[in-house]
Amino acid sequence: MSRKMRAVIKPEAAPGAEMAVVDIPSVGPAEVLVKVKATSICGTDVHIWRWDPWAQGRIKPPMVFGHEFAGEVVELGEGVTTVELGDFVSAETHVVCHVCHQCRTGQSHICQNVSIIGVDRPGCFAEYISMPQENAWLNPPDMPPDVASIQEPFGNAVHTALSTDLAGQRVLVTGCGPIGLMAIGIAKAAGAAAVYATEVAPYRLRLTSYMGADLALNPTEVDVVGKIMTATSGLGVDVLLEMSGNPSAIHQGFAVLRSGGYAALLGIPSEPLEMDLANEIVLKGARVYGVAGRLVWKTWHQTRALLSSGAVDVGPLITHRLPLDEFEQGLELMSSGQCGKIVLFP
Amino acid sequence: MSRKMRAVIKPEAAPGAEMAVVDIPSVGPAEVLVKVKATSICGTDVHIWRWDPWAQGRIKPPMVFGHEFAGEVVELGEGVTTVELGDFVSAETHVVCHVCHQCRTGQSHICQNVSIIGVDRPGCFAEYISMPQENAWLNPPDMPPDVASIQEPFGNAVHTALSTDLAGQRVLVTGCGPIGLMAIGIAKAAGAAAVYATEVAPYRLRLTSYMGADLALNPTEVDVVGKIMTATSGLGVDVLLEMSGNPSAIHQGFAVLRSGGYAALLGIPSEPLEMDLANEIVLKGARVYGVAGRLVWKTWHQTRALLSSGAVDVGPLITHRLPLDEFEQGLELMSSGQCGKIVLFP
Amino acid sequence: MSRKMRAVIKPEAAPGAEMAVVDIPSVGPAEVLVKVKATSICGTDVHIWRWDPWAQGRIKPPMVFGHEFAGEVVELGEGVTTVELGDFVSAETHVVCHVCHQCRTGQSHICQNVSIIGVDRPGCFAEYISMPQENAWLNPPDMPPDVASIQEPFGNAVHTALSTDLAGQRVLVTGCGPIGLMAIGIAKAAGAAAVYATEVAPYRLRLTSYMGADLALNPTEVDVVGKIMTATSGLGVDVLLEMSGNPSAIHQGFAVLRSGGYAALLGIPSEPLEMDLANEIVLKGARVYGVAGRLVWKTWHQTRALLSSGAVDVGPLITHRLPLDEFEQGLELMSSGQCGKIVLFP
Amino acid sequence: MSRKMRAVIKPEAAPGAEMAVVDIPSVGPAEVLVKVKATSICGTDVHIWRWDPWAQGRIKPPMVFGHEFAGEVVELGEGVTTVELGDFVSAETHVVCHVCHQCRTGQSHICQNVSIIGVDRPGCFAEYISMPQENAWLNPPDMPPDVASIQEPFGNAVHTALSTDLAGQRVLVTGCGPIGLMAIGIAKAAGAAAVYATEVAPYRLRLTSYMGADLALNPTEVDVVGKIMTATSGLGVDVLLEMSGNPSAIHQGFAVLRSGGYAALLGIPSEPLEMDLANEIVLKGARVYGVAGRLVWKTWHQTRALLSSGAVDVGPLITHRLPLDEFEQGLELMSSGQCGKIVLFP
Repeated sequence: MSRKMRAVIKPEAAPGAEMAVVDIPSVGPAEVLVKVKATSICGTDVHIWRWDPWAQGRIKPPMVFGHEFAGEVVELGEGVTTVELGDFVSAETHVVCHVCHQCRTGQSHICQNVSIIGVDRPGCFAEYISMPQENAWLNPPDMPPDVASIQEPFGNAVHTALSTDLAGQRVLVTGCGPIGLMAIGIAKAAGAAAVYATEVAPYRLRLTSYMGADLALNPTEVDVVGKIMTATSGLGVDVLLEMSGNPSAIHQGFAVLRSGGYAALLGIPSEPLEMDLANEIVLKGARVYGVAGRLVWKTWHQTRALLSSGAVDVGPLITHRLPLDEFEQGLELMSSGQCGKIVLFP
Repeated sequence: MSRKMRAVIKPEAAPGAEMAVVDIPSVGPAEVLVKVKATSICGTDVHIWRWDPWAQGRIKPPMVFGHEFAGEVVELGEGVTTVELGDFVSAETHVVCHVCHQCRTGQSHICQNVSIIGVDRPGCFAEYISMPQENAWLNPPDMPPDVASIQEPFGNAVHTALSTDLAGQRVLVTGCGPIGLMAIGIAKAAGAAAVYATEVAPYRLRLTSYMGADLALNPTEVDVVGKIMTATSGLGVDVLLEMSGNPSAIHQGFAVLRSGGYAALLGIPSEPLEMDLANEIVLKGARVYGVAGRLVWKTWHQTRALLSSGAVDVGPLITHRLPLDEFEQGLELMSSGQCGKIVLFP
Repeated sequence: MSRKMRAVIKPEAAPGAEMAVVDIPSVGPAEVLVKVKATSICGTDVHIWRWDPWAQGRIKPPMVFGHEFAGEVVELGEGVTTVELGDFVSAETHVVCHVCHQCRTGQSHICQNVSIIGVDRPGCFAEYISMPQENAWLNPPDMPPDVASIQEPFGNAVHTALSTDLAGQRVLVTGCGPIGLMAIGIAKAAGAAAVYATEVAPYRLRLTSYMGADLALNPTEVDVVGKIMTATSGLGVDVLLEMSGNPSAIHQGFAVLRSGGYAALLGIPSEPLEMDLANEIVLKGARVYGVAGRLVWKTWHQTRALLSSGAVDVGPLITHRLPLDEFEQGLELMSSGQCGKIVLFP
Repeated sequence: MSRKMRAVIKPEAAPGAEMAVVDIPSVGPAEVLVKVKATSICGTDVHIWRWDPWAQGRIKPPMVFGHEFAGEVVELGEGVTTVELGDFVSAETHVVCHVCHQCRTGQSHICQNVSIIGVDRPGCFAEYISMPQENAWLNPPDMPPDVASIQEPFGNAVHTALSTDLAGQRVLVTGCGPIGLMAIGIAKAAGAAAVYATEVAPYRLRLTSYMGADLALNPTEVDVVGKIMTATSGLGVDVLLEMSGNPSAIHQGFAVLRSGGYAALLGIPSEPLEMDLANEIVLKGARVYGVAGRLVWKTWHQTRALLSSGAVDVGPLITHRLPLDEFEQGLELMSSGQCGKIVLFP
């Protein structure tokens, strides 16, 4: 095996990224080396590329970034017992401490000392990545690499959507980037009575119907609250899945959430926003759940089941497949909203 | 309106039933008279017809029996405010007291003073039935009467299946009479990863695949436990939906229930059975839920949603449609297991 | 029985209230007349008295107000079956419609057509009150009338505190008016590992220790966040019970809520506030529950149990007992924060 | 440190046990050596001592047994990072695989490949024990060693009792050996409205009142079902905590469990028993939970909180303290039922 590889790196503390030749990462105890077969672009990668304030405070260049991937195990570190050479794996990207209160009480998805692949440690926009064996998730050998790669964000959608009962419920998804689009498919697969979707990007709004949305609304064009109240006979929705982090979408979501309803919030607002807590949550008797990461490994089992059984077809939302060399085009597309999920092949 | 009607009655404390001409029931305060458009046969009706020990202890002849139906409201009693003439309704068959501890703490489905339509008060195998307005469930006008009629047992299946999360879970349904068949469809609609079904009647076993079962097993022919353990890679099922009341099926179900699994029991064993509590429940860390009736009206909302959205198609399981006059043929068919659901039309 | 009675009324759409002689209310079908033995003052009564914007939009003078009480049933309306003459009762103050979606799915505490005693219909600052039989809660005959009267707000505290498991948990109560004080006692009775309390009024802060608080903090004097993080070894609290509606308290509460924690919000902010949703809820993986009213009758059963068993002693928080004629002094005291619960005797 | 120690061993596959001098166990990677300060006797130890059929099938002599203990860490194996020399620890006795489905989905308490200290690997009736660092639970330095030792069985009681909400509930504990006695105290600390207890051994029945039971009943002397139905005004109990494994107690428990109630089963019947599933579970709408082990580490946090806060006082139930040399007297006492918890000191 060559000890050098091609990788997309953030070379310095400034906007941009570049393809470079770097050392293949070493494999420490209880780690495995994975040859990347497919890797997909997350909104977080766009933040790192653009070097926004969050990235400036968190990323330490030079560093390979990227965290969604699937690949083949090609080297085993000392003491590896649960993964074998040749295994086809994806990665839970949260490397956790096992020691904090959260880790020790079944909430390792919110580990207080988490190290995230492609954020806090080297990522997967590369030919190879080294990772802890315990973060490897064994895929069925016949799962296509692009599908296997997007299980990580799909897991965010699963965690969000399946955090409450959806069978027979009316559901609103606000924000239909890739994870919102996934959530639509998951909600339908879980028996939702109806799924309404809001999204400002026309390209993505069109994709919502492929994923099964019963009603797709562009808030820049129609009265979202009015349309949904009409569609629900004035009752409102039982469940809100908030995927945008956008203040307007958040307020529209709570406006149509029925009294006694449930809201799962995955979208991350970029700054504080004004909330009418009294009417949006308290007097409504609403339940709200903040969603971080994936439940390890419950979410991954659900993910595999929904994908392997065909209950959710992610075909329509993988809109672009590019060689890794064209990563910059992928990042630009992702910025534009003119895409679903973009998969890169090293 | 004629003040006489045709109705199927249990004339005396003995096996059998007969078509008779009886008074159209009077309509008391807060009651409504419904012209029956379709009525379906439940296993309970067979017990009453055959006059088994349970029926002997509970039924007071002469009485019209039958309890699953849909029809049109044709007369309103004094003080009726929530139902209108012409409404197309089905019935929650449990008439509850509103006073017992269970009724007053959100568990009216297990009311301690329940009176059941067609069991404790006159039923619906007739041209008309009188019922409390509060038990009327308003159907969409375009729902076919046969589908509207079977919502009551469908609700039992909904209550059972949706008493736990099914998305991504492996589910076993033991006993595929009509309610078991419904449960298969509901589990698939709720995103189950796989649904396994066991049933001894070949006619019904064939129907399981129409409802979406991934594996249909006849315990008289194959090693159910072995087959399911193989299908689940030795893990067992996450969820057991027990619909048979049969001791062998119950033991097979618990044998393949994985440690930490969930069992919902709707089937009613006709007599006590030997249980290996230590291994079937305690050491397994299993959760078990005894299912009685339907959650009012949560279950009915879920029922409507699953049927109206097309998530579950009950077409394949309504196997026979007969005029009410041929009720005896229907009861015989139901006894034989050579049928799915049988609907009678007055 | 005299057909006139003394009552505290809001005579016109302006600040203030007065003692007046008015007709004893008539008793409609399914209603009962109750001779008030004790009635207590709620913060809502202060809003009505002061005629704040909320009151201006909701209250229709002239009207008797007040809604917390206990008394003896002295007259039965037509059709009353569940209450008897001489019964010693308190009132669930939410008169619900039984028809809306919430009422029909076990969430009548957030009925969409609720009519509240003393707000939307005549209240209990009077010698007599007429109320629906279904809202009457039968008290043990030996429960002191003042304790029986404050069960309604105690129920708010019960609903809030017992909406999650508290045994072994670290709990913060923000805002220790009467309901916050009750919540402290309930949390201790439910096995909380520690209860921290914040309150700006020194009088009430002193009462927190009588109710069992392990740490009482005045946010105007100490660094609440720092003190609680120290007390919890840097982890933060497992549970936040927000009783103040005050923006600073809300932010302090979320600041010390540990990742994966639970917040129940009962306090009603008087206007929208800025929330850092990303850090206060989403990334924290927090669960939040908006608390409205009481679960009927689950909360009342819990209330009776906690009071009757002596698990919670409300003695220390009933700080003032006055004749009804001195209602104005009571309202002034309540405004000042120089009190716990104030009970009036007609 | 001497490399030999005194230890109680099961020398051969036959009834009995003996004090022997054996090697101090070696300390493997990620293991720690603990000097035992206190160790307590479990019913399981009596099974091993008597060499009953379960023990014959599971235990591999010669072996040190015993599994409840507390002690000081005196040696660290290679790679130990989370425990320090001098730490005062107790042990979670289930050594789990981290690989099975249950371990990987948050249910490691029912690990399919569990190895139990003192059962499957050498135990703690000895001067020293070697154990995995990850099974060490750090105690407050000032916790008395006898209390620290009994946290393991106390955790079983916590897991059982706190598996449902107890505040304001009526609770029955069937079987008041040490764990049942603990459950009484925990239920009271968690706000139970009333705790009823049944036990056949008079010595233990007397202890129930020290732990806070409101009613103590000996089934050999009184009509348990009748007494409890009277005490609950004919309603029955909300919660059953079954700690005996005895068929009569199990049936009495389900007989008084109210419709819609909850049963947690920790007692392990020695053989299958006849169950009236229809009336005991199904028609009752009961929920049942089989309890195995302790939730790691949620149960331990709750345990510490209940003990450290003084919410539960285990003083009355530690009835005997003996030197380790008198282990045989301890095992005989435990067999006789003439004791609460027995602690041995090496």
